[in-house]
Amino acid sequence: MKYDLIVLGGGPAGYLAGERAGHAGLKTLVFEERSLGGVCLNEGCVPSKSLLYCAKALDYNKHAADYGITVGEASIDQKKVVARKNKVVKTLVSGIEMQLKANKCEVVKETAVITGKSADGYTLEAAGKTYTCDKLLICTGSEAVVPPIPGVPEGVKAGHVLTNREILDLEAIPKTLVVVGGGVIGLEMASYFNSVGSEVTVIEMLDHIAGPTDSDISDILKKNYEKKGIKFNLGAKVTKITDNAVEFEKDGKTQSVPAEKVLLSIGRRARTKGIGLETIGVLTERGAIVTDEYMKTNIPNVYASGDVNGKIMLAHTAYRETEVAVNNILGKRDVMRYDAIPSVIYTNPEVGAVGLTEKAAKDAGYDIAVVKTPMVYSGRYVAEGGGDGICKLIVDKKYNRLLGCHVIGNYASEFIVAAAILVETQMRIDDIKELVFPHPTVCEIIREAIFQIK
Amino acid sequence: MKYDLIVLGGGPAGYLAGERAGHAGLKTLVFEERSLGGVCLNEGCVPSKSLLYCAKALDYNKHAADYGITVGEASIDQKKVVARKNKVVKTLVSGIEMQLKANKCEVVKETAVITGKSADGYTLEAAGKTYTCDKLLICTGSEAVVPPIPGVPEGVKAGHVLTNREILDLEAIPKTLVVVGGGVIGLEMASYFNSVGSEVTVIEMLDHIAGPTDSDISDILKKNYEKKGIKFNLGAKVTKITDNAVEFEKDGKTQSVPAEKVLLSIGRRARTKGIGLETIGVLTERGAIVTDEYMKTNIPNVYASGDVNGKIMLAHTAYRETEVAVNNILGKRDVMRYDAIPSVIYTNPEVGAVGLTEKAAKDAGYDIAVVKTPMVYSGRYVAEGGGDGICKLIVDKKYNRLLGCHVIGNYASEFIVAAAILVETQMRIDDIKELVFPHPTVCEIIREAIFQIK
Repeated sequence: MKYDLIVLGGGPAGYLAGERAGHAGLKTLVFEERSLGGVCLNEGCVPSKSLLYCAKALDYNKHAADYGITVGEASIDQKKVVARKNKVVKTLVSGIEMQLKANKCEVVKETAVITGKSADGYTLEAAGKTYTCDKLLICTGSEAVVPPIPGVPEGVKAGHVLTNREILDLEAIPKTLVVVGGGVIGLEMASYFNSVGSEVTVIEMLDHIAGPTDSDISDILKKNYEKKGIKFNLGAKVTKITDNAVEFEKDGKTQSVPAEKVLLSIGRRARTKGIGLETIGVLTERGAIVTDEYMKTNIPNVYASGDVNGKIMLAHTAYRETEVAVNNILGKRDVMRYDAIPSVIYTNPEVGAVGLTEKAAKDAGYDIAVVKTPMVYSGRYVAEGGGDGICKLIVDKKYNRLLGCHVIGNYASEFIVAAAILVETQMRIDDIKELVFPHPTVCEIIREAIFQIK
Repeated sequence: MKYDLIVLGGGPAGYLAGERAGHAGLKTLVFEERSLGGVCLNEGCVPSKSLLYCAKALDYNKHAADYGITVGEASIDQKKVVARKNKVVKTLVSGIEMQLKANKCEVVKETAVITGKSADGYTLEAAGKTYTCDKLLICTGSEAVVPPIPGVPEGVKAGHVLTNREILDLEAIPKTLVVVGGGVIGLEMASYFNSVGSEVTVIEMLDHIAGPTDSDISDILKKNYEKKGIKFNLGAKVTKITDNAVEFEKDGKTQSVPAEKVLLSIGRRARTKGIGLETIGVLTERGAIVTDEYMKTNIPNVYASGDVNGKIMLAHTAYRETEVAVNNILGKRDVMRYDAIPSVIYTNPEVGAVGLTEKAAKDAGYDIAVVKTPMVYSGRYVAEGGGDGICKLIVDKKYNRLLGCHVIGNYASEFIVAAAILVETQMRIDDIKELVFPHPTVCEIIREAIFQIK
């Protein structure tokens, strides 16, 4: 079978490619060996949000008295939480199937491998059949890094050492959970299991949590988590995982913390092995496919989008990269920019951020102004319970525009896109001041902060 | 005492004027006869949000089973809800006091009346003292219209007929509540008292609820309210209010509905009486001060901003109008635009809207495309319980830009500002397509809808 475009992988990058290319009239095929929607929909962003929303509902029960409500003690049934999550995922996977069908994109649910190039185009093989295409888009995504720590292989086999995939299906709440790696995935699961009653400890090699998050934000986030009872060991290196504990070194001393379950969340790596990249000579660097601003690889007519290129491993980056790839495949010039990609941590409190952190802006040599506005400047934030969040702006003094916006406080997930638009369009601060934000909202904090710029 | 600027009224328009003008170095005085923050903060937007958030928490308790949570039946103590609301308001009023102080703006808590013009400037009198100023900004706001319906004066006196002011302080939940007027204020209170257990009936003269809201949105909103048990009588005219019932005419027939309490929410009118406007000849039209795009009245150096000019009675409109007024007072050219002012209904589900409705765009003669995207296209929306909401876009086909965005679904309050930015900047649809929205969020629905434009 000959196609205009074959897409390898049906995650966010891949299924959107199928939709867009099919919609544009290309004869398109998407290969997916597991489930459409990829890690994001099946074992990542979406299912974790389903769990976190249950935790949010539970938090409302715990804090009912704050709102004048009297209610008995609440208990949560993890089996029901997981069943609900599975239903959500199933609904959304069906939605993707329908979209692909509506856009006349074929889907083959097999493992496909690139086998080379013939006079007719690139060739792939799946379940014994050969497929040929003019253009190839690689969207094989990423996988959790499983570190070479003593005890990990045995723990994975025995089922008490988990990655993002398995933890979302855990049907019993562990008494103790140790999260190895304090990045976004680790923190979201730490937060969830803390809410539902586990004793949670996070062990992180760096001296801060939440990876590249602005340090003012991650400091406040850590304090909020600690107030809820999550324990942190920063600057600590896990040395061994046993049946019921995690051992780590910190400040030269070996310590141990009990762990009924262990979540490995030290990072993700591009999935470039075993898909036949070498048969056509696609260049990789540190395990990820090298792409340019058009999402082209070094090989003509071969593109890569999403986690597999190792740039910014977020589903919405994958979406945009795919659109750039498909537009270029269709002969429409489109360029990928990474300056205004928002990121979110969906815990309570939420974090939403876009653009440069204070440190990144300074490192890049910008002459900046920094504003930190307490979230309590928002009337709605106070009316809904408040907290110690802030909105931090990084402003380029030379051109009087926004370089970054970093918010810790609920609803940040939903309004950070407004800041992303301001960063992306490089709108001048004086023009931003003329925008009307609805009152009373939490998003008004951006406006408040804008007016505090000296 | 002589001032550069006197501001009459300390609501959103007035207190912000004090802050901005004080900050800019003008010797500024704000008169406020009641409490800083005006209707919005003391008896409007903010306290209603405090109540609605309690109802939201109660709703989480009612629907706990949906999230795998087992919990006893919840009850709400309206006295505590009101006490919490009062605390929120007090905190925010203090915040405004602090801001005014920080910006060196004086506040006099007396009723002031304009008395005329002397060689020294405009004169005002308050508590027997005379105040003079070069520039005058009138921000006296608005008040609820109390209709001349038989039984209303007696009911107001007896305390069972209420306006927005009294209902927020009601310390007992009425068994039955009749809301006269199905605009935003009426709907928010209908929704609150429905959640906490009142039998609620809304009586509205028009054939639809939610005033100028796009009709597709108000239809869905009405269905959602009805599902919760709120009853509606549209196209109905209240003819009489008795001690325990409201009588109305509908389709030529007189009907009656029991009412322990009655909320009057048929509209608001500008507060222009009794403030001495006639002493300096400020022009009013249908009871509101006439202002131009610089917020100037017909009288030199006299400006008006906020509800008192009767344009768009929303606090955030007042903020922007005040900024325009103060900028022009300071000699900086600034022009008021009303094209991209968002509006929000904070019930469950929420409504967020900005720009032209379908009808308004057609009436204005635009050649439009209309897109209606179900909210379930958002993964987070589904993960958090879903519903029958939509995102409706109105697109100007000639210039390929967004004229309006209308959303019914939770979080709309917090992300509608993103659509407001797109409408305000007249960004082209092709450029909007290049913006990156975080995934999974509900705000992505805007992106989904944008890509559905044909």
